Amino acid sequence: MNDRLRTPDELEGELRAIGAVRYHHLHPFHALLHGGKLTKPQVQAWALNRYYYQVMIPIKDAHALTKLPTSELRREWRRRIIDHDGDREGTGGIERWLKLAEGVGLDRTYVASTEGILPGTRFAVEAYVNFVRDKPILEGIASSLTEMFSPGIIADRVQGMLANYDFVTEETLAYFTPRLTQAPQDVDFALRYVKAEAKTRADQEKVLAALRFKCDVLWTQLDALYLAYVEPGLIPPGAFVPK
Amino acid sequence: MNDRLRTPDELEGELRAIGAVRYHHLHPFHALLHGGKLTKPQVQAWALNRYYYQVMIPIKDAHALTKLPTSELRREWRRRIIDHDGDREGTGGIERWLKLAEGVGLDRTYVASTEGILPGTRFAVEAYVNFVRDKPILEGIASSLTEMFSPGIIADRVQGMLANYDFVTEETLAYFTPRLTQAPQDVDFALRYVKAEAKTRADQEKVLAALRFKCDVLWTQLDALYLAYVEPGLIPPGAFVPK
Repeated sequence: MNDRLRTPDELEGELRAIGAVRYHHLHPFHALLHGGKLTKPQVQAWALNRYYYQVMIPIKDAHALTKLPTSELRREWRRRIIDHDGDREGTGGIERWLKLAEGVGLDRTYVASTEGILPGTRFAVEAYVNFVRDKPILEGIASSLTEMFSPGIIADRVQGMLANYDFVTEETLAYFTPRLTQAPQDVDFALRYVKAEAKTRADQEKVLAALRFKCDVLWTQLDALYLAYVEPGLIPPGAFVPK
Repeated sequence: MNDRLRTPDELEGELRAIGAVRYHHLHPFHALLHGGKLTKPQVQAWALNRYYYQVMIPIKDAHALTKLPTSELRREWRRRIIDHDGDREGTGGIERWLKLAEGVGLDRTYVASTEGILPGTRFAVEAYVNFVRDKPILEGIASSLTEMFSPGIIADRVQGMLANYDFVTEETLAYFTPRLTQAPQDVDFALRYVKAEAKTRADQEKVLAALRFKCDVLWTQLDALYLAYVEPGLIPPGAFVPK
């Protein structure tokens, strides 16, 4: 077994290789979503469930904040919380996601209640929050690195959804516009951090495992949507039933 | 809104009503499993994934133990850990589940590694462990009450699997035999406990929510199996691929 310390660039190469085979851009749900193959209720189910992910991200980032030892690091990470929570009422990523959900015809209060989400969504998202809460910060930061792969999927999504759904407008998708600049900035820091701080082979293995775990978190959310709302359409008791 | 305290028997009635609509005996995966409609690799996928649930149950019960204030209560709950871990090598529910997995043709070491399980299984099972760790013991005990509904499903399972699969023997299914007497004994205590200790309407709501949550944990595990190994057969990256 190879137990040589990887160079930082080798580590980055292996991280990118994980994304190439495990990131959720490969999930068939996304091909349907971006290709205009979903009905409006199916797009609603996606927006509703994904809201729970959005709303838990600042909680996850607050757990990370508790583990960062310097003001410099906390200032860097704090930006993520500001991005999601905004700096005044009516701003921030969570608010923009609620607008997206309203834009596709959902009731804002219903979405915000998270009552109708799939248990599979809840368990996957909470697994992510707990991971960052319970693991050393190196792994928590590594788990954020799925954002290395997000600009591509966001571009595909915005373009595909605007072209293919008459109920989707640019305003509805306003969530994604700032993400195109925020994500690379976040990745830049996180990738530098893990490359510098994974100082043993064992650390590097944990960094790679953290990214695999996070890919599973994203993938499993789409699995749950696919089963319930695409094929075979097996909606669990209590979850959102499209009208 | 009705905020009257339920009588203990009303509470039990509502608990049973939750089981009637949310317990996983209603999941189509079980109809296929018990009806002999699954292939051997599909039964393997079930045994492999369910192993992770088995192996985490004593961890869950140890969290419960940390919250029980008297020797009497801890002795009662300790029995569950003994049931799963056995009292010497080669005994206990986990060991019997490994024999079940071997009986349907899986490699013991592979099963025990939990490497090939679905992320959906992992997240659901860990949600259960975390629930018992993080919530007050009243809710933790209430979440165990799915066992009120298990004797029926176990009888169906053993009978159906023996009748329908030539690769399943009574010895393979030996896991289930003691469960038929253990589960009612466990339920008897847990049900008495929640009926006596849920002293406010708010407590009762939490007890009911805990059982709903636990039904979701079981249901979601079958959802994950169904999507990956029945229809549409969407196996997530890294999970068990039948030969």
